[in-house]
Amino acid sequence: MSQNGVTAPMGYKAAGVHCGVKKQGKKDLALIYSEVEASAAGVFTRNKVKAAPVLLTLKNIAGGRAQAIVANSGNANACTGEVGMRDALRMAEVAAAELKLAPGMVVVASTGVIGVRLPIGEIEAGIRRAVGLLSRDGSRDAAEAILTTDTRTKEVVVDLKLGSSRVRIGGMAKGSGMIHPNMATMLSFLTTDAAIDPGILQEALRASVEKSFNMVTVDGDTSTNDMVVILANGLAGNPRITGPGRDFMEFQEALDEVTVQLARMIAGDGEGATKFVEVRVLGAPTAADARLAARAIASSNLVKTAVFGEDPNWGRIIAAAGYSGAEFDWEKVDIFIGNVKTAEGGAAVPFNEEEARNELRKHDIVLTIDLKSGDQTATAWTCDLTYDYVKINASYRS
Amino acid sequence: MSQNGVTAPMGYKAAGVHCGVKKQGKKDLALIYSEVEASAAGVFTRNKVKAAPVLLTLKNIAGGRAQAIVANSGNANACTGEVGMRDALRMAEVAAAELKLAPGMVVVASTGVIGVRLPIGEIEAGIRRAVGLLSRDGSRDAAEAILTTDTRTKEVVVDLKLGSSRVRIGGMAKGSGMIHPNMATMLSFLTTDAAIDPGILQEALRASVEKSFNMVTVDGDTSTNDMVVILANGLAGNPRITGPGRDFMEFQEALDEVTVQLARMIAGDGEGATKFVEVRVLGAPTAADARLAARAIASSNLVKTAVFGEDPNWGRIIAAAGYSGAEFDWEKVDIFIGNVKTAEGGAAVPFNEEEARNELRKHDIVLTIDLKSGDQTATAWTCDLTYDYVKINASYRS
Repeated sequence: MSQNGVTAPMGYKAAGVHCGVKKQGKKDLALIYSEVEASAAGVFTRNKVKAAPVLLTLKNIAGGRAQAIVANSGNANACTGEVGMRDALRMAEVAAAELKLAPGMVVVASTGVIGVRLPIGEIEAGIRRAVGLLSRDGSRDAAEAILTTDTRTKEVVVDLKLGSSRVRIGGMAKGSGMIHPNMATMLSFLTTDAAIDPGILQEALRASVEKSFNMVTVDGDTSTNDMVVILANGLAGNPRITGPGRDFMEFQEALDEVTVQLARMIAGDGEGATKFVEVRVLGAPTAADARLAARAIASSNLVKTAVFGEDPNWGRIIAAAGYSGAEFDWEKVDIFIGNVKTAEGGAAVPFNEEEARNELRKHDIVLTIDLKSGDQTATAWTCDLTYDYVKINASYRS
Repeated sequence: MSQNGVTAPMGYKAAGVHCGVKKQGKKDLALIYSEVEASAAGVFTRNKVKAAPVLLTLKNIAGGRAQAIVANSGNANACTGEVGMRDALRMAEVAAAELKLAPGMVVVASTGVIGVRLPIGEIEAGIRRAVGLLSRDGSRDAAEAILTTDTRTKEVVVDLKLGSSRVRIGGMAKGSGMIHPNMATMLSFLTTDAAIDPGILQEALRASVEKSFNMVTVDGDTSTNDMVVILANGLAGNPRITGPGRDFMEFQEALDEVTVQLARMIAGDGEGATKFVEVRVLGAPTAADARLAARAIASSNLVKTAVFGEDPNWGRIIAAAGYSGAEFDWEKVDIFIGNVKTAEGGAAVPFNEEEARNELRKHDIVLTIDLKSGDQTATAWTCDLTYDYVKINASYRS
């Protein structure tokens, strides 16, 4: 039995198949199913241009309930007009019919190229096949079926105790490249056997996304298809979480661990990436300022190419913080590349160039900027910008 | 006599020399001089982190008067602490002493690496040498001396008649790469022999920058050193422009022509660029919406790599407009790659893939998005994102 993803919590099954959207037999259709109806919550793209599956899922989970998730990769079903909405509806209907649910109980998601109609016949056949393959071992296949330019599956599971009940939260994600500053689709599906009301679940998810996925994928710079959805089926039998309190805090903490781990995996699997970069902002006057600065640094092409070139060019870090919109006194700022202090009080300090380069030769790199203007912090994750990023994105559609 | 830049208007001389900031004998110090005191106006970086020369020049032209511009490349004199401000002051003092001006009459600018102290001795010697070389033919040398990763000089001159007087506006610029979304320094120095008051000159410059340099270099995403300065020495003898009116409108139009041409040259000389891209937004509800959409599309890494790959991936264009913050009804939008319509009413239309690719095989590419939500327009300029962009920026400091 897989312990590594959405089927780790009680009562979930999953499957992933190749139905024919992608070439070369790659898996392109994922199905996740809860044996019982679940509380549901979602966070969606803020892009004005929303793909049909996003619009449909927004509607379907408005009541806070869902029982299945169907997602295809290889085609975003975005900018496909009325036929696109009919195709998204059809995905929900076919999954619902096979699983004996109401169509409104199905979350639908798509990722891939924009503006091309879905091969709906193939997808329908794929859904039927996936239903037959649903199992407690299907998490990895499903996680594979939502990938696009990702090089690896991304799955996480975290355990916690609520009262005397053991609760699990599992998750999968896809997302690569288009991380900063113009991301492609980020999808994440989370499952838990916790008993929790939809309203407070939505609150937990929104807070968690802010600290995790939004720190690799800037608000506003979102694709047409981004979606994070969580199902909570209550089978763990914990005392139902209905509002704030100790249980809620513990659930939030565990959920944050899942989403932050998935977010870090997304950053580390950026298109063409050779390095994983963590940007830490300390000493900001507000949390919002800290996030602004962290995201601006993490999304700077110049910072990202300097990391690729293993060049301790800290001037690009302070310049990015400077245009981020964050409030701080730049003449107080300290900057560290790994453990090497390169600037103090907003100005250069003598540092050992070779030591700084050594920090950048590592695979996992930490860039720290202490704004010295308060006590708030934020962390963002990114990768380096490489030749392969250009290569992958110059030819993605072909 | 050079007709091609800042020495084209009456009463201006220029020089450019190698003083030792850059390696390999490349010119790195520019001087521009007006024989008489001039009205002066400037538009500066909005980055919170401002280099010493920016802070000094802001102060020096606050009174609306200046007579000389001294600029070095190879070193930004940014994040250099108190010694950086002393060095910037020293540049003004030495130039002023040699030219027999008050130091407050000198505009100082720098561009290059951040956080390294200027070799002020070399710069002082360079300024003295440049003063001796000042000439009507020195415009090209000066334009060369402000370049960093630029591959060519950028100079423009435009003529107009004001009353019975022939007036000229000349300009030079440097800027490359860091164009969108995290630009490096953009410098532009403009000269005119028009007689115009500083207040209205400042208004004209600000309006002109908004339509030109700001359409290659997004507000907020500005470097520590960006600066556009104009001198107007009045030697053309036109009826002095003191406020709005026909003469002002004609001056504004000519100034816009100079700045737009320079902005286009900057975009075309982007680091590693192989193509020049013009993004036209039509049918926006407001000019601000049009600019937001145009800049988001022009700064999208995904749009820029698709152009490099000659891939007519119009979905990336509509997605960028969608997250730009511009108001529009995306289900009305038409998109054109060159003359090939690829989307209508926010959805794909059948188009000849080969024809669209042929549009992208050209060096000069036009991408048009008609928002169909009003009558306002905007144009932005950019270049493709290539392997060489990564190469140049991975090793810029070394």
